[in-house]
Amino acid sequence: MSDYFSNFAHLKRKTYLKIMNKLTDLSEIGEFGLIERLNKNTVIKNSSTIFGIGDDCAGLTYDGKVVLLSTDAMAEGVHFDMVYTPLKHLGYKACVTNFSDIYAMNGTPKQILISLSVSSKYSLEALEELYEGIHIACEKYGVDIIGGDTTSSKGGMFISITVIGECEKEKVVKRSTAKPNDLICVSGDLGGAYAGLLVLQREKATFLANPNAQPDLSQYDYVIQRQLKPEAGKQTIDLLREKGIQPTSMIDISDGLASEVLHICKASKTGCELYIEKIPIDYQTARTVEEFNILPETAALNGGEDYELLFTIDQKDYEKIKDVENISIVGYIADESLGCKLVTPQNTTMELKAQGFNHYKTQE
Amino acid sequence: MSDYFSNFAHLKRKTYLKIMNKLTDLSEIGEFGLIERLNKNTVIKNSSTIFGIGDDCAGLTYDGKVVLLSTDAMAEGVHFDMVYTPLKHLGYKACVTNFSDIYAMNGTPKQILISLSVSSKYSLEALEELYEGIHIACEKYGVDIIGGDTTSSKGGMFISITVIGECEKEKVVKRSTAKPNDLICVSGDLGGAYAGLLVLQREKATFLANPNAQPDLSQYDYVIQRQLKPEAGKQTIDLLREKGIQPTSMIDISDGLASEVLHICKASKTGCELYIEKIPIDYQTARTVEEFNILPETAALNGGEDYELLFTIDQKDYEKIKDVENISIVGYIADESLGCKLVTPQNTTMELKAQGFNHYKTQE
Repeated sequence: MSDYFSNFAHLKRKTYLKIMNKLTDLSEIGEFGLIERLNKNTVIKNSSTIFGIGDDCAGLTYDGKVVLLSTDAMAEGVHFDMVYTPLKHLGYKACVTNFSDIYAMNGTPKQILISLSVSSKYSLEALEELYEGIHIACEKYGVDIIGGDTTSSKGGMFISITVIGECEKEKVVKRSTAKPNDLICVSGDLGGAYAGLLVLQREKATFLANPNAQPDLSQYDYVIQRQLKPEAGKQTIDLLREKGIQPTSMIDISDGLASEVLHICKASKTGCELYIEKIPIDYQTARTVEEFNILPETAALNGGEDYELLFTIDQKDYEKIKDVENISIVGYIADESLGCKLVTPQNTTMELKAQGFNHYKTQE
Repeated sequence: MSDYFSNFAHLKRKTYLKIMNKLTDLSEIGEFGLIERLNKNTVIKNSSTIFGIGDDCAGLTYDGKVVLLSTDAMAEGVHFDMVYTPLKHLGYKACVTNFSDIYAMNGTPKQILISLSVSSKYSLEALEELYEGIHIACEKYGVDIIGGDTTSSKGGMFISITVIGECEKEKVVKRSTAKPNDLICVSGDLGGAYAGLLVLQREKATFLANPNAQPDLSQYDYVIQRQLKPEAGKQTIDLLREKGIQPTSMIDISDGLASEVLHICKASKTGCELYIEKIPIDYQTARTVEEFNILPETAALNGGEDYELLFTIDQKDYEKIKDVENISIVGYIADESLGCKLVTPQNTTMELKAQGFNHYKTQE
């Protein structure tokens, strides 16, 4: 399994052909047959899941806890391109991006509902591959599949997943509760998923020009992994709990650091100072985006889909967090009147702006 | 509001042109602007909604109750046709079909999450119309909008709604708990939504042949209403509670009576006898489908989207239900070994088969 996911040699060129090479037409088995087939390996793991697939609704119980809910949608041609997105990775990513929202509230994901719309170009076997990725993600994160809806579409694939999670009432962390002087922290490193996207898009162009070229992508393995198979913030949440740190605010980084910091400041009615030189960037990310004449900090600030956590902590927790691996302190929350500032390594300041991508601008 | 929904004169011809007559490009306001604009009238009504839109997740509390969840998706060109589906009706219907799943478990819908994917042919104003229908449905049924995701698509519109509801633990009704000798009941009348669809499809063909024709649809008002603006089973659930009847099994009728009865029998491991002459069919439904050379009972058994409730009750509750308006007893549950039978008015029996539509068969 990890071999499959970490070896990208098989990703190239064949994915699209594989989808088109139909094995079983969906019309042959019908909607109910499809639901049965895709869910045959579904096993309930959580005690909060009373009953899952098989009725008009799933039933859950969450006595004494807050039930957290979020939904995230991905559309073919907008959020993923079938030329370079293997279906197993797509299923995995669709789950993880949803789990990420639950961790961003300091909760634990427990259940998902999957809404899938696919055109007839997809075979049953293609959907089973997608579901294999979904099952692997759910297995890894301890999440139950409790239902969904599968319909046909006239235009490609559309996946919408709703995730349900839980959190003790007093532990829930929102965006709106950062206070001036809190430290701004991020987990992991940023810009990698965007770097991976740039490489995959370049590969697609090369492929369309010359379908027989066999590129060597091994030097981009990390950034491609960041794009095709991101992980959600479970480790960070576990670490913070272990250290006894309750963040004062939190959000997941799906649209780029700048956009997320601004979300927290807007919701909390604060300003901030963010230090460019403190932003964690992997060496491969920096080297890759420079090939495309993009500054690494630009990729980190505005590239999306890293699914790391951005959170603020009270200054009193500084000693607890300062030496924690994989957590970087990148700035601090300021009074609203000071605005949101970006500080350069030369100690000049400029206004922090969100340039995360607007899906509606990239449309045909 | 009720005038808007009950007068179908405005539906014809202009809907599609209205969508195409762009007012505000979605790219002008971006994803966050769109979310803000569409949710500006969202007010929280239920105490189980702790917080809704504005964080990575919504937060709910359901102490001591079962949380019910379901998701239903609708795709343009498959579940609805923009030529004859006004956006306000579409929004209303997308909600109601989801609420229906909660009532089908004997629960009460409380919250929804809306996942929407739209191509750039839709303007902001078009989406606001869609949301107006969503708001009207939520207002009527007492449901909170707690979040969602809005993305662009390369192929038309896709709406996936996840509904959350509640039920006392001992009141939940599943599909799998019907017992031999239970009476099979349905609410309302059946086949109307399918009759309405036939009329609208014929109108579309007429329109394409002659865009200036002005048809009179007033004689089809009931069946068109059934297709474009169905209602969920709130009244039936309230009535059953009032009469002190706890159904032994229940399901909503979304794919036709035959398919749903078979679902209950399969899940409960029983057989059944269903009497054709007992199936409730409105006069306008019968008259309309006969124009299309379809037997009324065929429309009722196999036409989808009525969103009435099908449920079974213990024989001891017969006296309580026999004179209840809008509830028909259509058969009884039998031992599994007897199979699932359809009994004709001439008292001959045949095997009950589901011929509900298979979306994958109607694809291009």
